[in-house]
Amino acid sequence: MTTESLPLWFDLTAMSIAALFAGALARSRNFPIYGTLFAGVITGLGGGMLRDMLLGKEPVAISNAIFIPTILVAAIMGAIFFHKLMPIQGVFLVMRSLALGSLVAIGAQVALNDGAPLGSAIFLGIGTATFGGIIVDVVANQRATIAKQAHWFGSGMLVGAFVFVFVSYYINFWLAVVLCIATVFCLSFFSVKRNWPSPMWPGQDVTSTSGD
Amino acid sequence: MTTESLPLWFDLTAMSIAALFAGALARSRNFPIYGTLFAGVITGLGGGMLRDMLLGKEPVAISNAIFIPTILVAAIMGAIFFHKLMPIQGVFLVMRSLALGSLVAIGAQVALNDGAPLGSAIFLGIGTATFGGIIVDVVANQRATIAKQAHWFGSGMLVGAFVFVFVSYYINFWLAVVLCIATVFCLSFFSVKRNWPSPMWPGQDVTSTSGD
Amino acid sequence: MTTESLPLWFDLTAMSIAALFAGALARSRNFPIYGTLFAGVITGLGGGMLRDMLLGKEPVAISNAIFIPTILVAAIMGAIFFHKLMPIQGVFLVMRSLALGSLVAIGAQVALNDGAPLGSAIFLGIGTATFGGIIVDVVANQRATIAKQAHWFGSGMLVGAFVFVFVSYYINFWLAVVLCIATVFCLSFFSVKRNWPSPMWPGQDVTSTSGD
Repeated sequence: MTTESLPLWFDLTAMSIAALFAGALARSRNFPIYGTLFAGVITGLGGGMLRDMLLGKEPVAISNAIFIPTILVAAIMGAIFFHKLMPIQGVFLVMRSLALGSLVAIGAQVALNDGAPLGSAIFLGIGTATFGGIIVDVVANQRATIAKQAHWFGSGMLVGAFVFVFVSYYINFWLAVVLCIATVFCLSFFSVKRNWPSPMWPGQDVTSTSGD
Repeated sequence: MTTESLPLWFDLTAMSIAALFAGALARSRNFPIYGTLFAGVITGLGGGMLRDMLLGKEPVAISNAIFIPTILVAAIMGAIFFHKLMPIQGVFLVMRSLALGSLVAIGAQVALNDGAPLGSAIFLGIGTATFGGIIVDVVANQRATIAKQAHWFGSGMLVGAFVFVFVSYYINFWLAVVLCIATVFCLSFFSVKRNWPSPMWPGQDVTSTSGD
Repeated sequence: MTTESLPLWFDLTAMSIAALFAGALARSRNFPIYGTLFAGVITGLGGGMLRDMLLGKEPVAISNAIFIPTILVAAIMGAIFFHKLMPIQGVFLVMRSLALGSLVAIGAQVALNDGAPLGSAIFLGIGTATFGGIIVDVVANQRATIAKQAHWFGSGMLVGAFVFVFVSYYINFWLAVVLCIATVFCLSFFSVKRNWPSPMWPGQDVTSTSGD
């Protein structure tokens, strides 16, 4: 019962963290005000909307009046108070891992609650975390982070989603959230610090990947 | 009762204006025939389809047999009869404002009719107007207009959507349509004529925005 | 009755062929492992997911546990066993025609089974075939194949979708599948071999199209 009622506020929190992060990042990249709000709102809401549509439901972010205003405020807060922190690599990685890890967790959890198969829950976890950011990258005509040689960015989320789904399904939701965020953070952090390339096919040359 | 039955033909008209405009613009940019039809149909239908999916409904443009053929014809008409008018700035701005303003209006109105909160209605109004055009920009690998330093393009629609939702909710639908189109037109027109930049964050330098 | 039960396994087969092709193509373009899996899975699943959402249904690829794992395996098979064949033009065109033709067919057939109008079935056939590939092109920040001067690529699918819908509606599903794949293949093959440009508007100059 409490499990059933859990996703709503956690969903809102996860989306707000993502919107705050995206608003800060957009302003630090010198987007004008409208572009910053667009980036924050779409990064925050986009993945959750896709997830709900793929589960055949009306997106909660549309039907529930609290979502859009909250996420808009989070994006503005990010742009005003956090944009100067974005060039600090540690802050950037912590914020991004929190945003992505919690979106992976809530995306997969909503799917599991809805009775989706495990494979679909992993897919929807990754989709919830990445879809909004992909839209923003693509609209700004940048190569999406997920398509770059990006230090275990996508691969880290895939591992995090696996960890989340299995721990949540067999053990406990909150432990799964913590392990998922920790996994995404560690793989991002160490792959950047130690310059691990994205996992490659045998015989591929890192420097020649289409990514980067 | 008439209010309930109003959106369908107005929806079709708004989509057709957008398709006509997009067909004309695509041919004036020298797209081949298939690309022109693609641009017209997607600009016309894309936003309304997204809106209906986000409201948890089957898109009317799929279920109603009249939509796709009508919008295809509008795109072809635009490409044949209007493509030479596109380089005339006044005609371009009038047509774009009519297309965007009426899509904002119908998008927000369908959302309000469906019982969506005001914030969601504003979001869906903007989404209905911009989603189709964003897809076309992105598929043609151009930086989407909405992400450029674009003279109050996005900001103008945001203001227009606010105006529409409040006038429609508290006063009258038709007055709201007229004011919404007029707002989008005036902000576009004067921002281009007088070269107003997109609204910026304090301390931002216009010339250095990531938009162009 | 058999007609009703037909789309599921044919849907899975069509998606798997597309995933296999996209996995092979992505590795031949030197994508890292995660990007290859992303390209394969999204090209395979994306169009069918869009189709089901546009028909107001929960996508079968989410609700049915067999889809995501099967398509993932197909993408991996493609990347491992077929990537070296991609530079051979004949193999590439045969595989692409098989993938696109069968996706057009299943997309349109599911729409017809669902009671969609003929125009919507053609639209959804083309959408099922192209949406996933467009996402991958766009995320990798390439001009989507569909927007290029691309030798009857888009136009060929439009013709193929017309052929499929009319033959399937008035004659027989399997004959329609064969004719649709054959049409897509022939138009692709001969337009590449004989260097036919995309159909143009009167007075347009091939070399100056915005497509490339």
